[in-house]
Amino acid sequence: MRMYDLIIKKRNGETLLDEEIKFIIEGYTKGLIPDYQVSAFLMAIYFNGMNEEETVALTMAMAESGEQLDLSEITGIKADKHSTGGVGDKTSLILGPMVAALGIPVAKMSGRGLGHTGGTIDKLESIQGFNTALSKDEFINNVNNIKIAIAGQTTDIAPADKKLYALRDVTATVDNLSLIASSIMSKKIASGAEVIVLDVKTGNGAFMKNEEDAFKLAEAMVKIGNAVGRQTYAIISDMNQPLGRAVGNALEVIEAIQTLKGMGDKSLEALCIHLGSYMLKGVKHVETIEEGKQLLMKTIEDGSAIRKFKEFIKGQNGEEEVVDNVDLFPKAKFIESIHSVVEGFVNEIKTEQIGIATLILGGGRETKESDIDLSVGFIINKKIGDYVAEGESVGTIYANDRNKLEEAKEKFIKAYVIKKEQPKMNKLIKGYVTRDGIFKF
Amino acid sequence: MRMYDLIIKKRNGETLLDEEIKFIIEGYTKGLIPDYQVSAFLMAIYFNGMNEEETVALTMAMAESGEQLDLSEITGIKADKHSTGGVGDKTSLILGPMVAALGIPVAKMSGRGLGHTGGTIDKLESIQGFNTALSKDEFINNVNNIKIAIAGQTTDIAPADKKLYALRDVTATVDNLSLIASSIMSKKIASGAEVIVLDVKTGNGAFMKNEEDAFKLAEAMVKIGNAVGRQTYAIISDMNQPLGRAVGNALEVIEAIQTLKGMGDKSLEALCIHLGSYMLKGVKHVETIEEGKQLLMKTIEDGSAIRKFKEFIKGQNGEEEVVDNVDLFPKAKFIESIHSVVEGFVNEIKTEQIGIATLILGGGRETKESDIDLSVGFIINKKIGDYVAEGESVGTIYANDRNKLEEAKEKFIKAYVIKKEQPKMNKLIKGYVTRDGIFKF
Repeated sequence: MRMYDLIIKKRNGETLLDEEIKFIIEGYTKGLIPDYQVSAFLMAIYFNGMNEEETVALTMAMAESGEQLDLSEITGIKADKHSTGGVGDKTSLILGPMVAALGIPVAKMSGRGLGHTGGTIDKLESIQGFNTALSKDEFINNVNNIKIAIAGQTTDIAPADKKLYALRDVTATVDNLSLIASSIMSKKIASGAEVIVLDVKTGNGAFMKNEEDAFKLAEAMVKIGNAVGRQTYAIISDMNQPLGRAVGNALEVIEAIQTLKGMGDKSLEALCIHLGSYMLKGVKHVETIEEGKQLLMKTIEDGSAIRKFKEFIKGQNGEEEVVDNVDLFPKAKFIESIHSVVEGFVNEIKTEQIGIATLILGGGRETKESDIDLSVGFIINKKIGDYVAEGESVGTIYANDRNKLEEAKEKFIKAYVIKKEQPKMNKLIKGYVTRDGIFKF
Repeated sequence: MRMYDLIIKKRNGETLLDEEIKFIIEGYTKGLIPDYQVSAFLMAIYFNGMNEEETVALTMAMAESGEQLDLSEITGIKADKHSTGGVGDKTSLILGPMVAALGIPVAKMSGRGLGHTGGTIDKLESIQGFNTALSKDEFINNVNNIKIAIAGQTTDIAPADKKLYALRDVTATVDNLSLIASSIMSKKIASGAEVIVLDVKTGNGAFMKNEEDAFKLAEAMVKIGNAVGRQTYAIISDMNQPLGRAVGNALEVIEAIQTLKGMGDKSLEALCIHLGSYMLKGVKHVETIEEGKQLLMKTIEDGSAIRKFKEFIKGQNGEEEVVDNVDLFPKAKFIESIHSVVEGFVNEIKTEQIGIATLILGGGRETKESDIDLSVGFIINKKIGDYVAEGESVGTIYANDRNKLEEAKEKFIKAYVIKKEQPKMNKLIKGYVTRDGIFKF
């Protein structure tokens, strides 16, 4: 087999065989196939696409390119949730304890990643003492005993995807459905979950700006997951404004705690319950989504969710007192209100700009080596549809540097589009995709 | 300007500006843009193409990427001929002396190249003492005094093309009209000729297997040449059988001598005269092609062409006696007839196979480092349409190694398709392209 011939095959619109895709991914991971051949191949995929079988083969080849987590020592069916990423997305911190409170094992390996804020691992590190570097035994023991553990990826999950993504990123070959879907799914599959619930975000703060593309991506991923024996569901949710009220690492953990106590943003709570109910259905804990929602709601009402969160923190050596005393979180030096100079209804929030403003404050990573400032960020006081009086606060900024504060504040206020007329409201949940098909609300 | 954005632009089907193409070619030549970005870009060109302006810009950027020959010290308008390559193509060796005999300067810088036989430079080196490594002054003096010099490329002509071609070759991005046309034309333009006559070969022994593609390539190149002020013509000629009778380095020089003496293969002579007459028209030595043909024919009849060839050899320190005594050429150890085991008419010759057979004998280069055996090759005794009796000789093989001889011989005889019925005859010259349009015969 020669890479050259496989480039021609894809270039000419033919279908690649399983073993051909495996040859490419193995060869590339081992450095036997050079970047320049793979980038030409990726561009050919951009134009000619890949069919379902090819996409599944690519996903599995990438999943098998490194270590695959063996979660068989954990009792019960393991479910995982994955979000395609958005601004203010702290659902994992809320969902995890809720689902675990019902006795379902939540074993989450999470990367740090690049982005507007840190990953789940970074956020958790804003809790003093919290240990995300668990050994494999500690990880498994915690899941078996507490039903939940979240640890940093120590193993080499899907290294082919990492290498391929870096190449796509500099060769304008990111925007292809098969490549996007297989990249996400290869990591999820290698991470060992038997049930995968995907939160596919769409809107001006998401990777998929447009709803139709989001449904297509969801469909592609659900097909891959089910094709390889993982029960996979996707929820398509709105990302035309930050999720909930907090953007920033410690601020988001605080919001998660409030939500687990039943005092959080209702749309955030609704999304968590929706996603969680698919996890419950997937592991066969409930028959229907409605039943799942009720059980999850109950974990908030009866306090079992917040108790589980405390237990979880303690299990990883964190200061569990944070749950009752938010003063224990790292604090920003400057906390200021951001006032509107106009009056009207919030018609639009340029969500990506809010993300970039958080990055300016130091709340996220621009490169792998960047340090994260866990205390900075924003609280969103006004969301789409809200009325704003002149001089009223639209948000609160948390910063440690005066210059960065000014720059980020300006970006934040510019992200708000305020008009006299009331806006058309967006649905938070746009629909879902299961192996039975696509359902749009 | 960022390469990433230019890849996106081409990927999205937009048109690149002159300065953008220049940025890419300069950056790539200098090693500032990596192979993997350029290969993705080339694949995007494969799918989205380039328009005429882009193709001209690419050609000029490549032509300007290295040294450009300054032929201004040569008196008169300089004409050059370029062939897209075929088996048994020795037209330069015949054309050059004929045109020079009429007082038109022929200043040819030629590469060695890879292929079934050597390049013009290699072939000339089968003449004892022949010096192809002329200094710039010797080169110009010879052209001014003798009207003809052929020397090896010492200068760095279009290095961008060399680098780009090597990348295209391993990334399945050779087959694009704009890329092929600009590759050829960039070298011709940098070589300084004011009149360019292109011999675009088509058929089973040519790069362009199909006639329609050959006309399109011819059209693209003629447009480029004329757009940058070089008078450019293209002849589309048949390559469904070797050109003339000899394939191999010394054997082809011998055939050139016979042709210059008026004793050569008539189709080879006709093609040379046809190509030459466009050179004469281009430099305004004649008004019409017909007039050019008559003048060139006369150089054979009156002996001025063969005298010029002698003068040319002497001018580059070669043994001019070879013209009258072919025994002075390097001789192969084994010379054998190849007999047909069937009877009938030659319907087809798999020309590329004849080329490969020559390569097996050692007559060409597989890699840049290969040594060439100048004495080996074939004499073609039977061409398409010829009747062959059982046991009759279809060709003669010249070899220096018994094993290679057997392998090459088998390839040669397998290249012949002999049938009872007479074949449809191919026209040698299929048509031509000038700035006035496409003319098919």
